[in-house]
Amino acid sequence: MLGTTMPDAPTAPLARPARPRTVGIAVYGLGTVGSAAVTILQSGAAELEAQHDVRFVLRHVVVRDPGKSRAVDVDPLLMTTDWSRPLEDPTVAIVVELMGGLDPAGAIVRRAIKAGKHVITANKALIAAEGSALEAMAEAHGVTLRYEASVGGAIPLIHTLRGTLVGNRITRVAGILNGTTNFILTRMADDGVAFGAALADAQARGFAEADPSSDVSGLDAAQKLVILARHAFGRWVPVECVERTGIGDLTPTDVLEAREAGEVIKLVAEAVLGDHSMRLSVAPRRLPANHSLAQVRDEYNAVQIEGDFAGSLTFIGRGAGGHPTGSAVYDDLVATARAGRRRA
Amino acid sequence: MLGTTMPDAPTAPLARPARPRTVGIAVYGLGTVGSAAVTILQSGAAELEAQHDVRFVLRHVVVRDPGKSRAVDVDPLLMTTDWSRPLEDPTVAIVVELMGGLDPAGAIVRRAIKAGKHVITANKALIAAEGSALEAMAEAHGVTLRYEASVGGAIPLIHTLRGTLVGNRITRVAGILNGTTNFILTRMADDGVAFGAALADAQARGFAEADPSSDVSGLDAAQKLVILARHAFGRWVPVECVERTGIGDLTPTDVLEAREAGEVIKLVAEAVLGDHSMRLSVAPRRLPANHSLAQVRDEYNAVQIEGDFAGSLTFIGRGAGGHPTGSAVYDDLVATARAGRRRA
Repeated sequence: MLGTTMPDAPTAPLARPARPRTVGIAVYGLGTVGSAAVTILQSGAAELEAQHDVRFVLRHVVVRDPGKSRAVDVDPLLMTTDWSRPLEDPTVAIVVELMGGLDPAGAIVRRAIKAGKHVITANKALIAAEGSALEAMAEAHGVTLRYEASVGGAIPLIHTLRGTLVGNRITRVAGILNGTTNFILTRMADDGVAFGAALADAQARGFAEADPSSDVSGLDAAQKLVILARHAFGRWVPVECVERTGIGDLTPTDVLEAREAGEVIKLVAEAVLGDHSMRLSVAPRRLPANHSLAQVRDEYNAVQIEGDFAGSLTFIGRGAGGHPTGSAVYDDLVATARAGRRRA
Repeated sequence: MLGTTMPDAPTAPLARPARPRTVGIAVYGLGTVGSAAVTILQSGAAELEAQHDVRFVLRHVVVRDPGKSRAVDVDPLLMTTDWSRPLEDPTVAIVVELMGGLDPAGAIVRRAIKAGKHVITANKALIAAEGSALEAMAEAHGVTLRYEASVGGAIPLIHTLRGTLVGNRITRVAGILNGTTNFILTRMADDGVAFGAALADAQARGFAEADPSSDVSGLDAAQKLVILARHAFGRWVPVECVERTGIGDLTPTDVLEAREAGEVIKLVAEAVLGDHSMRLSVAPRRLPANHSLAQVRDEYNAVQIEGDFAGSLTFIGRGAGGHPTGSAVYDDLVATARAGRRRA
């Protein structure tokens, strides 16, 4: 152990209030991400109180099936199947929507905002479809809407685009935004298997849904690209405007031909800002094997951000999974609680 | 009667203060980074005012030689060689120290803090040596001290460690933190040249100082590692406690042997947190060619951050140069101005 110590800081405790501020939370959805978010919330409680004088209190957990066994311990008395009740509870300050899909998630988020609750969501489909309207609604009701977990798992992409690079004109955002298809493409390249076999492998390992159409068609990546472009370029682009080609038609021959040319096929999502134009696309592309995106394997995500002063920055991390995504949800929770304190 | 008219008053201006808040700035040093920071400040002025109602006003620029030609247009009346005068100017709210070195930079930063000025610096030597004391001093005087530009150029590393991954226990930070030595090692590997020839090439291209000892000995990387470890682990480690081996003794044979084994030599800085220990080191290491750090070439920097929930995140970008570093300085300027508003 190194002989390092922190300097004594006697002033800090004196400056603190006598009791931590409690912040009531309602969580919607207790699947992989919801369970991980609640786990992190429980494990981070002591540090949060010590550092920020905030104590999160879980008031309600809305689930479809209260009898189902879960990866996290939650007081059964907090569980409910009634999604409207937590929105009427004045002790709930933050609503965390982790159900996914448009319905009833969209109704829950809209009702929460109108009830004056801050909202955090990991729901890329909802934000890509209704982000513009939901942001306006949140501003009108004086609450915040955060969705860091909707893109790139634990990689702090929205945080970086909003909070740093402020002097830069961002001209391009490009990357691998869908872990399922990247896992499939890695298997096809490494093992020479066909698309169907690689997909079955991804499903067996839990990297692909029973219905993989949103991943395979590029829709999932397009939704995430719309969210990144909003923060890179300041505009909401309808997901229908993203030029989109999926990977369902790729054959082992395509993959083999690329490899023989020293290249790798990746599903690349790219948003480019011109002087008078903006172009968003998702498509399989052949990249040189030494390209930084070509080296991103399995379920990892990678995003390159180009700014006129900062140059090209690359961010790589796990793009999905309970813990990485739950980590991003928790970041949003702490940011929401801290912003509330500043206003108070 | 229709004779009375209201003056035109679009709704947006009504919600804003009548005039933007002006924030006085003194910049110390107008070399590569200082010139770039002032350039970004000038080019970002309109957007800053539109988005945050803040106008930065350059009050003083302290230089060693006012007659020297510069890469940026600065009113000659703002230039001074007297470093104490701007600290006595009550209209200066933020001091930006970009001179480097310990003297007089250390005295300037300490005096600025005591005078109630917020401080921004890119000075890794100063922060690694005195960061602990300077942070305590800043807290005592109610000002902020920011130094994003001291590590990793434009990559928002400190911002990420402070503002995100909050629910995570960071267990390891590792990376390539010195662009000069990475450029030298890339040349030695690609061209098979000796250390001296690669160094001369780096100097000719402006990637290495006339006196490269701080880079070559690993001291520069060790200073940056100390700064990252402070935000990853919450502890200031004296730079003398970093186990350190430079690259000056590497021979073309070492590089060749590594290549024949399918490996690449990189100067790796690594901070590891154990249950009861913390270990910081900088040393040349042989990495497998497909290791993500092995693929970082030339003057680029890369940092991997490992959190217990987020997993491993990798950040890659230009680690030096005027524009990337100036971009990080500007981020700190905007963050300082916005924090000031919140307190107001």
